[in-house]
Amino acid sequence: MDRIFVLIANKARTSKFNLNDLPGSAGRMDIVCRFISQSLFISHGIRKNACAYAILKGIPEPCKTIKISGRDVRYLSPDERNIAGMINKALSAKIDEEWREISPGVHVSRKDVPSLLDEFSGRSIYYLREDGDDVHDVEISDPVFVIGDHLGVGVDDEREIIRRADGVLSLGKISYQADQCVTILNYILDRRCEG
Amino acid sequence: MDRIFVLIANKARTSKFNLNDLPGSAGRMDIVCRFISQSLFISHGIRKNACAYAILKGIPEPCKTIKISGRDVRYLSPDERNIAGMINKALSAKIDEEWREISPGVHVSRKDVPSLLDEFSGRSIYYLREDGDDVHDVEISDPVFVIGDHLGVGVDDEREIIRRADGVLSLGKISYQADQCVTILNYILDRRCEG
Repeated sequence: MDRIFVLIANKARTSKFNLNDLPGSAGRMDIVCRFISQSLFISHGIRKNACAYAILKGIPEPCKTIKISGRDVRYLSPDERNIAGMINKALSAKIDEEWREISPGVHVSRKDVPSLLDEFSGRSIYYLREDGDDVHDVEISDPVFVIGDHLGVGVDDEREIIRRADGVLSLGKISYQADQCVTILNYILDRRCEG
Repeated sequence: MDRIFVLIANKARTSKFNLNDLPGSAGRMDIVCRFISQSLFISHGIRKNACAYAILKGIPEPCKTIKISGRDVRYLSPDERNIAGMINKALSAKIDEEWREISPGVHVSRKDVPSLLDEFSGRSIYYLREDGDDVHDVEISDPVFVIGDHLGVGVDDEREIIRRADGVLSLGKISYQADQCVTILNYILDRRCEG
């Protein structure tokens, strides 16, 4: 089953950052890197059916959104520093509202939450929140999962998400990190596909 | 439920390494870092009931085993570089067969696979392997999960594990990275604890 993951990275820097300080001056870019890694990688391979979008909302030029397609991406490793280097390259490019390909399978644009979600018409948008419906009770198809970072999702973004969402999903009583939500969702979908 | 995770890191370096090259000259230390991170961290917190052990088997001084207790660890962040710094500190210490505390909740010793597993008498040892019993069919209590890295587990180590194991578990048809196995196992146990 094709799956799309969207992270809202509230403080992630939108210009070139220091690879040695992802959690600090780069605005918790470590969360973005782990999110991308967990969206795409399995042991010894990449999920061709997965696509990760990270909406970077930090200084100095919000928003910038990075898209990494498992089908097309090349030369990417699962470690944070490698993925951060790829993001840095994307942030150095001149970009506008439309997607621009930075390297195979990696695109960047100025899209924000509403303009990105509007791209997914025809798919089911699921917003992850602790008080949502238990994921195990929900049939999921053609999913776009929208996930907040350590700061959650701001009220304006949440309104835009809820307006477009087909459901609000919960993974249980524990609040997981964004990358952990992705790993768990991938696992749940993998098992459902196995029947 | 208390849970213990053990990673066998076949090539992870056993002396001080370069924080900027975790996947390369540090011998896939990025896998070790993600494994520790996923064993211990949830959103805005650390699992007090989890403990991670990484058996480093790389050059120049194998084996060294690092133990991080969720109950006691301080000053640790979930990003790879922060955890790698903690490992580097542990590898710089003078160590022998017994556990030595490097910083709160972080211990290091010269234990190898058999001598480490022998510490867990009274607990149930589960070996993760793709052809094992489906985790969903197995009742799990007081678990010690033993997981290989990208190279799997060598024949000698596997013999020692199997001899002590209460079960061989599989997470399904897909082969996951070590840190993903941990996230999934934590999730499965979390949900079982919720009832």
